[in-house]
Amino acid sequence: MSQVAGTRVGIVGTGWMAATHTEALRRLGVDVAGVAGRSPARAQEVADRLGLATAYDSVEALVKDDSLAAVHVTSPNDVHAEQAAAALRAGRHVVCEKPLGVSAGETAALAELAAGSGLVNAVCFNLRFSPHNHNAAGMVRDGALGEPRYVTGAYHQDWLLEETDWNWRLVAERQGHLRAVADIGSHWLDLVSFVSGRRVVEVLADLHTFVPERNHPLEEVGTFAGHTVASDAERVRERMTSDDAAGMLLRFEGGMRGVCSVSQVSAGRKNRLTWELSCSERSVAWVSEEPEYLWVGHRDRPNETAGKDPSLMTAMGAAVTGYPAGHVEGYPDTFRGLFAAVYADVAAGRPSAAPAYPTFADGHDVMLVCDAVVESARSRTWAPVRRSAP
Amino acid sequence: MSQVAGTRVGIVGTGWMAATHTEALRRLGVDVAGVAGRSPARAQEVADRLGLATAYDSVEALVKDDSLAAVHVTSPNDVHAEQAAAALRAGRHVVCEKPLGVSAGETAALAELAAGSGLVNAVCFNLRFSPHNHNAAGMVRDGALGEPRYVTGAYHQDWLLEETDWNWRLVAERQGHLRAVADIGSHWLDLVSFVSGRRVVEVLADLHTFVPERNHPLEEVGTFAGHTVASDAERVRERMTSDDAAGMLLRFEGGMRGVCSVSQVSAGRKNRLTWELSCSERSVAWVSEEPEYLWVGHRDRPNETAGKDPSLMTAMGAAVTGYPAGHVEGYPDTFRGLFAAVYADVAAGRPSAAPAYPTFADGHDVMLVCDAVVESARSRTWAPVRRSAP
Amino acid sequence: MSQVAGTRVGIVGTGWMAATHTEALRRLGVDVAGVAGRSPARAQEVADRLGLATAYDSVEALVKDDSLAAVHVTSPNDVHAEQAAAALRAGRHVVCEKPLGVSAGETAALAELAAGSGLVNAVCFNLRFSPHNHNAAGMVRDGALGEPRYVTGAYHQDWLLEETDWNWRLVAERQGHLRAVADIGSHWLDLVSFVSGRRVVEVLADLHTFVPERNHPLEEVGTFAGHTVASDAERVRERMTSDDAAGMLLRFEGGMRGVCSVSQVSAGRKNRLTWELSCSERSVAWVSEEPEYLWVGHRDRPNETAGKDPSLMTAMGAAVTGYPAGHVEGYPDTFRGLFAAVYADVAAGRPSAAPAYPTFADGHDVMLVCDAVVESARSRTWAPVRRSAP
Amino acid sequence: MSQVAGTRVGIVGTGWMAATHTEALRRLGVDVAGVAGRSPARAQEVADRLGLATAYDSVEALVKDDSLAAVHVTSPNDVHAEQAAAALRAGRHVVCEKPLGVSAGETAALAELAAGSGLVNAVCFNLRFSPHNHNAAGMVRDGALGEPRYVTGAYHQDWLLEETDWNWRLVAERQGHLRAVADIGSHWLDLVSFVSGRRVVEVLADLHTFVPERNHPLEEVGTFAGHTVASDAERVRERMTSDDAAGMLLRFEGGMRGVCSVSQVSAGRKNRLTWELSCSERSVAWVSEEPEYLWVGHRDRPNETAGKDPSLMTAMGAAVTGYPAGHVEGYPDTFRGLFAAVYADVAAGRPSAAPAYPTFADGHDVMLVCDAVVESARSRTWAPVRRSAP
Repeated sequence: MSQVAGTRVGIVGTGWMAATHTEALRRLGVDVAGVAGRSPARAQEVADRLGLATAYDSVEALVKDDSLAAVHVTSPNDVHAEQAAAALRAGRHVVCEKPLGVSAGETAALAELAAGSGLVNAVCFNLRFSPHNHNAAGMVRDGALGEPRYVTGAYHQDWLLEETDWNWRLVAERQGHLRAVADIGSHWLDLVSFVSGRRVVEVLADLHTFVPERNHPLEEVGTFAGHTVASDAERVRERMTSDDAAGMLLRFEGGMRGVCSVSQVSAGRKNRLTWELSCSERSVAWVSEEPEYLWVGHRDRPNETAGKDPSLMTAMGAAVTGYPAGHVEGYPDTFRGLFAAVYADVAAGRPSAAPAYPTFADGHDVMLVCDAVVESARSRTWAPVRRSAP
Repeated sequence: MSQVAGTRVGIVGTGWMAATHTEALRRLGVDVAGVAGRSPARAQEVADRLGLATAYDSVEALVKDDSLAAVHVTSPNDVHAEQAAAALRAGRHVVCEKPLGVSAGETAALAELAAGSGLVNAVCFNLRFSPHNHNAAGMVRDGALGEPRYVTGAYHQDWLLEETDWNWRLVAERQGHLRAVADIGSHWLDLVSFVSGRRVVEVLADLHTFVPERNHPLEEVGTFAGHTVASDAERVRERMTSDDAAGMLLRFEGGMRGVCSVSQVSAGRKNRLTWELSCSERSVAWVSEEPEYLWVGHRDRPNETAGKDPSLMTAMGAAVTGYPAGHVEGYPDTFRGLFAAVYADVAAGRPSAAPAYPTFADGHDVMLVCDAVVESARSRTWAPVRRSAP
Repeated sequence: MSQVAGTRVGIVGTGWMAATHTEALRRLGVDVAGVAGRSPARAQEVADRLGLATAYDSVEALVKDDSLAAVHVTSPNDVHAEQAAAALRAGRHVVCEKPLGVSAGETAALAELAAGSGLVNAVCFNLRFSPHNHNAAGMVRDGALGEPRYVTGAYHQDWLLEETDWNWRLVAERQGHLRAVADIGSHWLDLVSFVSGRRVVEVLADLHTFVPERNHPLEEVGTFAGHTVASDAERVRERMTSDDAAGMLLRFEGGMRGVCSVSQVSAGRKNRLTWELSCSERSVAWVSEEPEYLWVGHRDRPNETAGKDPSLMTAMGAAVTGYPAGHVEGYPDTFRGLFAAVYADVAAGRPSAAPAYPTFADGHDVMLVCDAVVESARSRTWAPVRRSAP
Repeated sequence: MSQVAGTRVGIVGTGWMAATHTEALRRLGVDVAGVAGRSPARAQEVADRLGLATAYDSVEALVKDDSLAAVHVTSPNDVHAEQAAAALRAGRHVVCEKPLGVSAGETAALAELAAGSGLVNAVCFNLRFSPHNHNAAGMVRDGALGEPRYVTGAYHQDWLLEETDWNWRLVAERQGHLRAVADIGSHWLDLVSFVSGRRVVEVLADLHTFVPERNHPLEEVGTFAGHTVASDAERVRERMTSDDAAGMLLRFEGGMRGVCSVSQVSAGRKNRLTWELSCSERSVAWVSEEPEYLWVGHRDRPNETAGKDPSLMTAMGAAVTGYPAGHVEGYPDTFRGLFAAVYADVAAGRPSAAPAYPTFADGHDVMLVCDAVVESARSRTWAPVRRSAP
């Protein structure tokens, strides 16, 4: 870890992800030098709050600061691709929040740019780094479960339940065409592909807009904070077209099938991702709100509820476990694990042959699946994931 | 309950359901007079084991015994409709295991016969009678949850995981075209329709046959007992065509949507049904293996994990609760609750205007949904549930 | 089971236990002939409700009915010993609710009478018959867990939380000196002794009376129903002396130690018994409100959450399991299991050499532990369980 | 937070707690300047691993570094008091791991020194800072639960189960007289006192040594790592006298009672702390391995399973919550919360009138309870907590 200490990085974006990244980087000894946002004033405010030395005047200024080894992009989705590309072009390693962009067109170009840059590029599918997700991925790769056959699960939240809830994700120009699928479905899709080692090849989706109109407050509203807007705030009524929720049937490489539901309007589900993977010999299942345990299902002996015990995990699982069994590692720790993997490559100056973290190529792949979701929902039939020939 | 005591009934079928029905009927004081099966010898064996006075020579003989007020049909699916019809024609009230038949054609005729008979007719969607399912249905009907919007869940088992597992449900002629969907998916479909008060109107399904060939033992094998067949038993290799598992996207009356997965090949999931219903104000969720609790999700106050406390349930829930809170009511109790409702009508000599139990009309309705599942899986697009005009 | 069918039994008592016993007996095909209570009128009311043929004029009349093979005593604690003795003297097999009496003096005499009678005698520690409790007992006896060392847990309820709650158990003359310990602590003490195969030899107890005064309604109040008394019912203020709750440190045969808490004033705990047994190699734990699972703790491999799968249980566990895995067996099923064991001996006409159910000797042993609890609470130090020399 | 950024601190100790503290401090922007340990070489090794600039030659050298605002003591228990005192005398604010020392004699002197120093002093009862523990404490203080009456629970681990497990805590000279009670029981005792706002006044304890002899390896063994020692390592057989496990009955201020079990030899319990607090109106309960939820028990409405949602928590709970609901905060986050409270006072240059973190006075109070535990176990009766007159 000592090579990491002192590495300087800059953060683009001033929302709660900026704080989350800052904390996780600091745990590793990385030096978070400063932040840039939509305005110098907002950057200064966040720099003060987080104790960062520099509030950059602009994203451009930050990207061009040659003292920075890497840039983290945590802004709204519509500027991800452009900012990440600018940072790569300036020679920075780049860590970008998901989704990587708002269309597969722009993420294709970005992934290509990254691949040719020789620079480290990572997309924040942080949930892979909750230790049991790596542990389960290790079980699949070790052949301990047999052939992956069937993956089911859900990602449900409730912070957009009420028509008075608001966030930039409700503005199509900033979020992209898909909302719930892009925002949280993308996590689920990446995670089950990672665990199973299988990519989605065909999709059948049904998109739902359960809240057809919303009251758009004129002030800015933070993520997960919609219900804190004063009830007498000035608002504009707006018609909604993006998905509050969605159902997906999935076909993966190697004959694996899947079923997934996604919702941001499920009262009481604050942030609950579940997956269950049935393989030819065993099953595994995980629930994000109880990350300490991995359920392992057996036909011919009692099921297991494995604790997060490095001495009892696969090598892949133990490698990303930071604390002893029973010492729960939660949401902030997933960023720690992800960035530890990324900064090992940053310290080496270049991406590994097989990076231990999700890359822009992975981020682009999920965008292709999202495109198939849109196509399928419109055509009411199966849509293929249109990967270009290798 | 006193009018019920002494009512005489006969059981058709000699499997584990015959024993389950017998126990539940006896709890109510109903007199289980005898049993009929495929052969007089098998009937005698079961009569001896269960302590029943009469082993009928044939189903016909049982049905024609005028001392019987009611007949329970617990045989394989392919003879349900024919036996139930025979019992109705003989003037018996009839309780039939699910599914009501192997095609919507035969169940349409049966439901019509039942409706015109003036006799009590019930199909064994027993899970409705786990108290919290009635409790949740009461919440929807009372308007406590807002408008039902989105129902998700699963029904997973593992008793057909291995290619050496066998049961009559694997023989298309006895089970019908669908397997996992008809056997357990039918329970889920009925249950969420009951709880939400909404019928399925359109389906998109994907059917999976993960175990493409099986070894068919020549001896008879009981349900849930496939893995007890001796490994050296004589077997015939057979190609499988029916569904081990399935994914379904659903559209219901009133704009409600749904997502469901069904599997009988999920290692470690012995018999786990889950549902979660997101409504416009609250959510509710239930897990069959932990029936004591109902999860109630809130946006603006802490979520609840309601116990099975009659004093804290809706009237619908309290009405089917037999024991105090914390005194878990399990699987056998669901039959007790179902039969208590049925035999109140039997005691009255005729069905209520609005029966408190699922009728043959409900059993037929699920068959129509199953037909839409088959059609959708073939056509790769949405299929409507083809209810005839009222 | 066929020898059991038709056996005639009578029930003494008219509370909810009379109904619970009746249902469980009927499941086995036992003929519940009639009931006796404090008055002929009350007996008739219960007979009508349960559909029983006979309402006996008195307990004496019931006990002397020579058509009865067995008598079940479900009355308040103060008359258990006297009624059970009367039934034994009349030559009936006897099943008695717990606790077996209100003092170890009277239960000593009763246990001696039973032992000399050649008749079947059982006390209703029904929780032993939740399948995983037998399963765990089998693990201990098979040596699968190593040496039992340390047992901890609790039995908490809330139905006596409020000062307006009332029940005959609050009247010392009917309940005995101890309340929470005798009523529910006795279940816990019997259960962990059964599972571990170790008897308590020494006790240190602290008794608590958190509700020092209560409002005694003049009308009769059923168990678990205190809060249904009308708020304007006539009541008398009474000072309470018995235990609402208690803490116990325990020493068992063979060096095993234990810690237990008991409470009937824990808001929200409807009826929750938990135990955890640490042995020299493995641990096991069970929670009464989630009876489908047994937790098995390992040091050097992942913990297990065993389902109630007869094919994966010990022989002891499988023997008392009535339904397949995932088909939850709840509270009523524990009586079915207990009575099935009892009536196998009734059918044989005499107790087995090693009865598979708790006998009056077991019921007396728990009374001796309760006496030690009282002595310890008074003396503020350890009290031995004063078993007479064999 | 900006005043905190750049504050320099030094760490005493080179075990896993040194790393845990370093990470948590860095999240807040605190500058962890260096580390001191038993030897300069060991300090250098840890400084390299954690990316710290300075490896001090000795604890003395670190303590005297005037560039340091604060010192964290994470060494074995026997040197806590001496090192903390040295740091205070040198004018450093001090954060000390628990227990604060090995006898109430030394912690009394230390607490007095701290109180007179005008310096910030904190003891690492970090579990208070899992958000729901603060949330529950807020509920008690707000009167939302009624009067606290009865607290029960356990703290069980398994890392010292086998006779080949070893750690410095097994050496009485370094750990003190008590082992399990001091190491983890102290956490439980502090936590329930914090939540309930009640101090222990009297104790009855039973101490158990289930593993009477152990094999002491000659090499140093890290905490939670005993089972990683090579099986052929050189070892010495040693007789054990300290507690593997213990049962405690407790009496608190205001008539509250308690029952607690503690064990480090419970196979499968990796690090599980539970508490349940019954109050006169409601109950609350928490399980450390599932920190996202707080159970709130009600008598007259459904129980709650509250998520970690700042908008639905008490002010005390929300104040220490760092991430939105459903974004699990685990073990490392408790240190972040604790240190955030401590460093607000460090930034102010002095302790608040009512510090928001546990102080040396709190650490000493738990030592007094531990002394009463030892006294009670020896005398076999209740022992008072001997607080000196104020």
